[in-house]
Amino acid sequence: MIVDGLQYCRWSRSIFEDMRAGGVGAVHVTVSYWESARETLTRIGEWHRRLEEHADLIAPATTGAEVRAVAGSGRTAILFGFQHCAPIEEEIDLLGIWAGLGVRFMQLGYNNQSACCGGCFEEEDPGLSRFGREVVEEMNRLGIVVDMSHSGERSTLEAIERSRRPVAVTHACPRAFRDTPRNKSETVLRALAETGGMFGFSLYPHHLPEGPDTTLEDFCVMVARTAEITGTHCLGIGSDLCQDQPDEVVRWMREGRWTRRHDPSVRFPPQPSWFRSNRDFANLARGLERVGFSADEVDAIMGGNWLRFFDESFQPVRAVA
Amino acid sequence: MIVDGLQYCRWSRSIFEDMRAGGVGAVHVTVSYWESARETLTRIGEWHRRLEEHADLIAPATTGAEVRAVAGSGRTAILFGFQHCAPIEEEIDLLGIWAGLGVRFMQLGYNNQSACCGGCFEEEDPGLSRFGREVVEEMNRLGIVVDMSHSGERSTLEAIERSRRPVAVTHACPRAFRDTPRNKSETVLRALAETGGMFGFSLYPHHLPEGPDTTLEDFCVMVARTAEITGTHCLGIGSDLCQDQPDEVVRWMREGRWTRRHDPSVRFPPQPSWFRSNRDFANLARGLERVGFSADEVDAIMGGNWLRFFDESFQPVRAVA
Repeated sequence: MIVDGLQYCRWSRSIFEDMRAGGVGAVHVTVSYWESARETLTRIGEWHRRLEEHADLIAPATTGAEVRAVAGSGRTAILFGFQHCAPIEEEIDLLGIWAGLGVRFMQLGYNNQSACCGGCFEEEDPGLSRFGREVVEEMNRLGIVVDMSHSGERSTLEAIERSRRPVAVTHACPRAFRDTPRNKSETVLRALAETGGMFGFSLYPHHLPEGPDTTLEDFCVMVARTAEITGTHCLGIGSDLCQDQPDEVVRWMREGRWTRRHDPSVRFPPQPSWFRSNRDFANLARGLERVGFSADEVDAIMGGNWLRFFDESFQPVRAVA
Repeated sequence: MIVDGLQYCRWSRSIFEDMRAGGVGAVHVTVSYWESARETLTRIGEWHRRLEEHADLIAPATTGAEVRAVAGSGRTAILFGFQHCAPIEEEIDLLGIWAGLGVRFMQLGYNNQSACCGGCFEEEDPGLSRFGREVVEEMNRLGIVVDMSHSGERSTLEAIERSRRPVAVTHACPRAFRDTPRNKSETVLRALAETGGMFGFSLYPHHLPEGPDTTLEDFCVMVARTAEITGTHCLGIGSDLCQDQPDEVVRWMREGRWTRRHDPSVRFPPQPSWFRSNRDFANLARGLERVGFSADEVDAIMGGNWLRFFDESFQPVRAVA
């Protein structure tokens, strides 16, 4: 089964049809970035409507078993996540509200420092705050995956160390292949590999070795070299596909409402020719095979590892030892 | 004129009568701690109603001139402030909304790490974040005072350094007299003194040298010793008076909604016998005189310094150079 660890497309029937044509079994979709709790209710309401309107193509899932059932019915399972802690508004009990509404992933912060931790684009990363430590504990209890994709190095390592359940970096590339603070160090990759965590390779051009000019082979060599360090068990795809989104959306992602310095030059970069939609996952599988992965390894990286991770990550812990 | 740099009482006509009996010309009152933007509108609405109902005793003020006019009319001027950045919800333009609604002070964070800076009870203080730097700049522009009372040492020093307008620690004591992270170091005191900032001495027992058993003389000696280091020009009172509040309120202040670890033993400590209400400011003035301050110095510390600071701090900057 093909599983994508993160997308934020401008959702449409056409994209859901792409998912089916591409054989995508499950996608973790971003519900909120900078949205407040109230605004997040609206975002989830919008998803409820989409899920009704396109019930022949997509269906919600909150467990590994549900993902299998939805994919088995010939549809794509949709998993909800947040890319920032804004929807919890420094209120620990809102995590349980969101878990109850099907949210299964949350980042502790997005690029910037948050009340929980340091961000990848800050000069300083203080690690997890008092609140951040409580949030991780509560996410562990509820079965919401701690996603550290946009967090700083120290915070990411502390989350991996403190979390009693495996942590994910749903979408990034190894920093060794493109040196941006948004990508992850070998230390982080090793820590994820040793703790049952997951690393989703991003197809977002700013993360890729040669930007939009990265070839399929470049991408697959990056995966292969990373697997030499981490093994394949912790690797997946987290495409960060933002298909059909207007440029206002990348400005929303970067700038939220936190800055008065608007940069009108911020645009979505063009995707590499071999990964432009949900129809293109077969290219990745072929490319991975070509660089030497076995059929089983390709299956694991294309979705099997995410599925195992879902099985382990989404059950609430009823009694805390 | 007597000016108090911070109070959070359970507001009532009786307390406003105390203000008049005590000759208090102005009080900075806390409107919000952990309240969201929406909840803060409710808090301000409650203040509008109080200001109507007790218009014979209190009136709002947003400039030094208004403070003088209100006090001159035999009433107490009320200045609004926030003790945390929760009401701006990571939205820079909400600062202008709050300024327009009369808010003249905001802390960048309360005890904990915030999206703006580090808190005094965190293990690590990363200084001002990207958002924190923009918030300071916007507060400078609007004429909202940057209050660092509950922030960490590094963040406090960075705010003093970066802010183009003087910074306040509205309510704390020097750490030399009680060693708690909530009190301020000599480095901070000197930095405030050198930059036109203000330091309001707290009467909250947990900040005082001997807690509730601190004598009036102990308190005034602390002020005198501090003045030897800083001069008197930057010193005032920020009593942190929480009169008539039930213990749930101190738990709200400490725990907000951010923790699942509720500590039912958290209570308001008893006030020292010589400072229990707004009627007791005369005790402070007498005590300060007894430890050797001149009449002019006592007037400055009891309110004159705050009033000068208000004159300098609350005008919006129309054109940014």
